[in-house]
Amino acid sequence: MPSEFELIRRHFTRLTPQALLGPGDDCALLVPTAATVLAVTTDMLVEGTHFLPDTDPCALGWKVLAVNLSDLAAMGARPRWVLLAGSLPAGDESWIAQFAAGLFACADRYAVDVVGGDTTRGPRNLCLTAIGELPSTTALRRDRALPGDDLWLSGQTGLAALGLAHLQGRIQLGEALRDPCVAALQRPLPRVELGIRLRDLAHAAIDVSDGLLADLAHVVEQSRVAAEVFLARLPPLPVGVERLLARHCQLAGGDDYELLFTAAADRRHDLAALAGELELPLWRCGRIVAAPVGEIRVVDEGGQVVEFGDRGFDHFA
Amino acid sequence: MPSEFELIRRHFTRLTPQALLGPGDDCALLVPTAATVLAVTTDMLVEGTHFLPDTDPCALGWKVLAVNLSDLAAMGARPRWVLLAGSLPAGDESWIAQFAAGLFACADRYAVDVVGGDTTRGPRNLCLTAIGELPSTTALRRDRALPGDDLWLSGQTGLAALGLAHLQGRIQLGEALRDPCVAALQRPLPRVELGIRLRDLAHAAIDVSDGLLADLAHVVEQSRVAAEVFLARLPPLPVGVERLLARHCQLAGGDDYELLFTAAADRRHDLAALAGELELPLWRCGRIVAAPVGEIRVVDEGGQVVEFGDRGFDHFA
Repeated sequence: MPSEFELIRRHFTRLTPQALLGPGDDCALLVPTAATVLAVTTDMLVEGTHFLPDTDPCALGWKVLAVNLSDLAAMGARPRWVLLAGSLPAGDESWIAQFAAGLFACADRYAVDVVGGDTTRGPRNLCLTAIGELPSTTALRRDRALPGDDLWLSGQTGLAALGLAHLQGRIQLGEALRDPCVAALQRPLPRVELGIRLRDLAHAAIDVSDGLLADLAHVVEQSRVAAEVFLARLPPLPVGVERLLARHCQLAGGDDYELLFTAAADRRHDLAALAGELELPLWRCGRIVAAPVGEIRVVDEGGQVVEFGDRGFDHFA
Repeated sequence: MPSEFELIRRHFTRLTPQALLGPGDDCALLVPTAATVLAVTTDMLVEGTHFLPDTDPCALGWKVLAVNLSDLAAMGARPRWVLLAGSLPAGDESWIAQFAAGLFACADRYAVDVVGGDTTRGPRNLCLTAIGELPSTTALRRDRALPGDDLWLSGQTGLAALGLAHLQGRIQLGEALRDPCVAALQRPLPRVELGIRLRDLAHAAIDVSDGLLADLAHVVEQSRVAAEVFLARLPPLPVGVERLLARHCQLAGGDDYELLFTAAADRRHDLAALAGELELPLWRCGRIVAAPVGEIRVVDEGGQVVEFGDRGFDHFA
């Protein structure tokens, strides 16, 4: 087994044009853009909790970065630098090489530099910290939703949960649905460009990592408002899956990394134009109301309120 | 077991006066000081690899922050913000409460804000990312040692390794030595103020985490120079331990978090004054020479070169 230093040199050392000093010293040195604010976030992925032991390491390398970039996107920040710490079992060099390939594929796609990290031995665990920048007054905070706002969702939620259920053998997806669902789970596309473009359009935003209703709950609680979700305005459910299961995954499945955001009603035209420009569907799927604070009402196609007990995924629940 | 969100709220939510936005959103928001450079570092501590399962959680909370602040100190950066990600077994709330007490004791001591994090379930693993600031041209890099520089060491190295050996039952320390050695291991004091004051005095610096010779090797390799270490000028060995073991721990023991740095010979007076002001011994224990590049010669009290095979601790060796 090569040494820790040699492993890092072989697989994680790339040029870091956005850093004053990259990996190899006690710290990386970064020059922030004048008059910007930093957005910082960290996420830890644990084998057995967040990914299966046989997960493709290349997909995992992509995902550990993508989920952090999604948090930056949800603030409207442009990603710039990341640090990666990893604990790995012995004898893992081929795994490391594939993991690094996936990580750097995502880093290249979103133009971020991997500026530092830490490698150690232990149960497989990957922790990534991402740093982005944004103009000072434009952050998309969770606590800025206003009564009267429209509620919007990008893309589609629920596919990742279906993909996970398929990989775990709990359901059997047909050929047409299998690939997009597994891809949604393993190679999520963080909505970085959308987040940046929403700085001047949206009031509040969050990325859907725990499930649509669970993440919406954070927005309404922190904004001290309530929300209505209209099933008829959500993205069409995928064909070839039992309808109730598909709906449950759409509302309560985790790991989607779409953006859920609120915007004033006079922004509908701008948002429709943005959807066209980014070639990314934006669904006006609900609205923010004043009360009762913290409540989410899900309204079906007939205008009836429906009950959903399980709002999403809590790692300790 | 309370939920992930409740655990974070109870134990990790403090005021964050240095952040524009602290924990609770997708990202923390930070305003960097104008015209400074950011120094960033991340370190992961794994149960079984970096700490024993029965380690006092309060001491561990201190240490996971302290080791990262030590990396900032080694660059000359002033610490400002940290993010903590942790994977923990179930049913751990009392452990978490003690860990948080230790973490915030260190955060208070060094005036840093814990601005964000992630909590999940799994084998115990703690990953901390620290962000500091420094004026742009003053970073203490590893690759800046110059032939003719003096080599300096702060404090004392080797005590942490002795403390570990004692806790593991490999040696039996007397009462007088046990407490300082276990404290050196469990509650290291990162040399933050020293690092800041060295910005204008030192050329190169590194913190001693892997062992004095192992870390000096990084400096000489990256600076393309060689070094001589004079045993007679190192801190006196502790009394009450077999001399060869004490010397081995001093030169090759890990986990010390002292600063090892180089400075021009005309800075000796300034550094002696600084040692007095900080009440921290600074030992002029060697010198940088031009060649052979990468070599470290350890010279004993009689002027003879001595051999040390084991330079320090490599997590994968």
